[in-house]
Amino acid sequence: MTQQTPTPEQEMLNWGRLLMDGLPFADLIAARDRDPGITWFDFWMSRADSYETMGEAAIADGHAHTAGYWFWVGSMAAQYAQFLWFDERRQEGQLRKATLYHRAAPLLNPPAARVDLPIDDTTIIGYLRVPTDAERPVPCAVLLGGLESTKEESYLFENLLLERGIATFTFDGPGQGEMLQDVALSDDYDRYASRVLDHLVTLTDTLASDRIGVLGRSLGGHYALRSAAKDNRFRACVSWGGFVQMDDWDFEYPMTKQSWKYVTNSPDLETAQIRVRNAIDVRPVLAGLTCPTYILHGAKDETPITEVDQVKEYATNAQLVIDIEPEGDHCCHNLGPAPRLRMADWLATELTR
Amino acid sequence: MTQQTPTPEQEMLNWGRLLMDGLPFADLIAARDRDPGITWFDFWMSRADSYETMGEAAIADGHAHTAGYWFWVGSMAAQYAQFLWFDERRQEGQLRKATLYHRAAPLLNPPAARVDLPIDDTTIIGYLRVPTDAERPVPCAVLLGGLESTKEESYLFENLLLERGIATFTFDGPGQGEMLQDVALSDDYDRYASRVLDHLVTLTDTLASDRIGVLGRSLGGHYALRSAAKDNRFRACVSWGGFVQMDDWDFEYPMTKQSWKYVTNSPDLETAQIRVRNAIDVRPVLAGLTCPTYILHGAKDETPITEVDQVKEYATNAQLVIDIEPEGDHCCHNLGPAPRLRMADWLATELTR
Repeated sequence: MTQQTPTPEQEMLNWGRLLMDGLPFADLIAARDRDPGITWFDFWMSRADSYETMGEAAIADGHAHTAGYWFWVGSMAAQYAQFLWFDERRQEGQLRKATLYHRAAPLLNPPAARVDLPIDDTTIIGYLRVPTDAERPVPCAVLLGGLESTKEESYLFENLLLERGIATFTFDGPGQGEMLQDVALSDDYDRYASRVLDHLVTLTDTLASDRIGVLGRSLGGHYALRSAAKDNRFRACVSWGGFVQMDDWDFEYPMTKQSWKYVTNSPDLETAQIRVRNAIDVRPVLAGLTCPTYILHGAKDETPITEVDQVKEYATNAQLVIDIEPEGDHCCHNLGPAPRLRMADWLATELTR
Repeated sequence: MTQQTPTPEQEMLNWGRLLMDGLPFADLIAARDRDPGITWFDFWMSRADSYETMGEAAIADGHAHTAGYWFWVGSMAAQYAQFLWFDERRQEGQLRKATLYHRAAPLLNPPAARVDLPIDDTTIIGYLRVPTDAERPVPCAVLLGGLESTKEESYLFENLLLERGIATFTFDGPGQGEMLQDVALSDDYDRYASRVLDHLVTLTDTLASDRIGVLGRSLGGHYALRSAAKDNRFRACVSWGGFVQMDDWDFEYPMTKQSWKYVTNSPDLETAQIRVRNAIDVRPVLAGLTCPTYILHGAKDETPITEVDQVKEYATNAQLVIDIEPEGDHCCHNLGPAPRLRMADWLATELTR
């Protein structure tokens, strides 16, 4: 299925993804050319430390915008330090990422307001950002992370939506970021998305409760399909490089399989595959998807393009927009801003018509 | 003086500069890996065409933000198509750049309002951008292009200032962009900057006339020093990789020498060097510089770091902040966002204290 299995370093040094998510090019060059005695993890965690120091200096000098930027870039450096390691580094990097983002949040423009939502025996930690100059109430997009992406990484995409007059809400659900310690990957991500929605619809002064959409990237695309299929309060749905089911996982790269094992809290890969296959299957509920839905997929994604056919086969009650990029890799990270702008424009249009 | 003379392709494919000025990474990869039968110029002009088409499609679909972005990126593609060619391609690319930016301007956020200012027998074409959510009147920064950079390329730097509450004004002066056909490089750039200032101080509802600064990049840094030295209405000055004089030009790369020849409208390099040496010398007036002044220089810039010593020697009446980056190349383009953020914060602080 795959043409070539990348080395860990090749899989981690995904230039399109890291740059489009906001890491400076200078850091990628430095990571590539680093002393071979310095591990990938240590390199990026050291960058995170530097950026935190720069953020603190900016605060001391009264430069709040710059401080917010450095704390956020530091958070991204910690993210990409840990995102494909599965020992104690994972947790250390995740904690560092979350901590730095918490520091960045009030300094971002517009700020990200932290929201804690109790559910079962745990808490959903999320962030709401509202465009400053738009007339309220405004529409809102709920943004979902994926297998190793979390609420902190959608910042640049949020900015695209915010300048189009759309508020954004991000959070960690089962198997993700700050929730992983309490709840592993599960088959009911939609319940967490609905819990978020229960909260958002109460913010009637700020948000237009009948204009809330959902967008997810990679595994988050799967979650977006599930969430919109199960909760028809979502008025628009975007699956950005997502998929329908995981009956087979031979196409996955070795480190990605390790990632599945990690987020399912499995003792071995065999167990992980069974758990993933059982939890990740939206076919039984996809007929419930009734809102307009946008599917972006790169034809050169290792996640098979046949997933798009499955969306068409099972989502029989939704108006689908299918956007296939012939040269796109996973999530079309290699194609620059065009696919992201198309998704942002489509979602903004659907939520404001 | 130089360690290595770059090939034309190496000089043009300046990753740090092109990325920090906003060209998508995917385009740089495509430029590097293009069919050898396609010239650098044709590759980028074709990208400009594609981006214009995408901008038009976005307008047709009602996506004004996206249209503005594509027209602007198209303008940048045309800029970097032509910036180091000196035959008819130069003028063709310049015209394309200006035309695409004119289309982008009203769609940018905040918009860039075109201003035409008569001077002598020609017209200064400039653009004013004003932060939308700041209380007026706001401070303003006048941004100056350099040897092959023009009013269109400062967009991302403008955004840094705008989010810090500072309006921006960019224009083409002698030897630059849309003015080059009328006026070649000259020794009185400051007169054009003062003409701009004469206009800006009349906009009393919008701009705080006693809080206007000037910043220039590369040769624009030289112009900034000259402009602030000759017109003490400028309250702060930034020289971003600038220089004081051009008595010697052995350090310049071959294509940069061609660029000097082009903007001085010289028949040969010998004539060009004489004209440049005569026109580009701020030492005689630098004692007139009295406003706070920030000097950024990369120690690995081919423009000698001794230029900083000359600023110190001649600018005896200004409070200087000297910021030398040991690993910085020309304008520190290779270092990512940090130097740009420092300049933006310093300038915003000086203009709001």
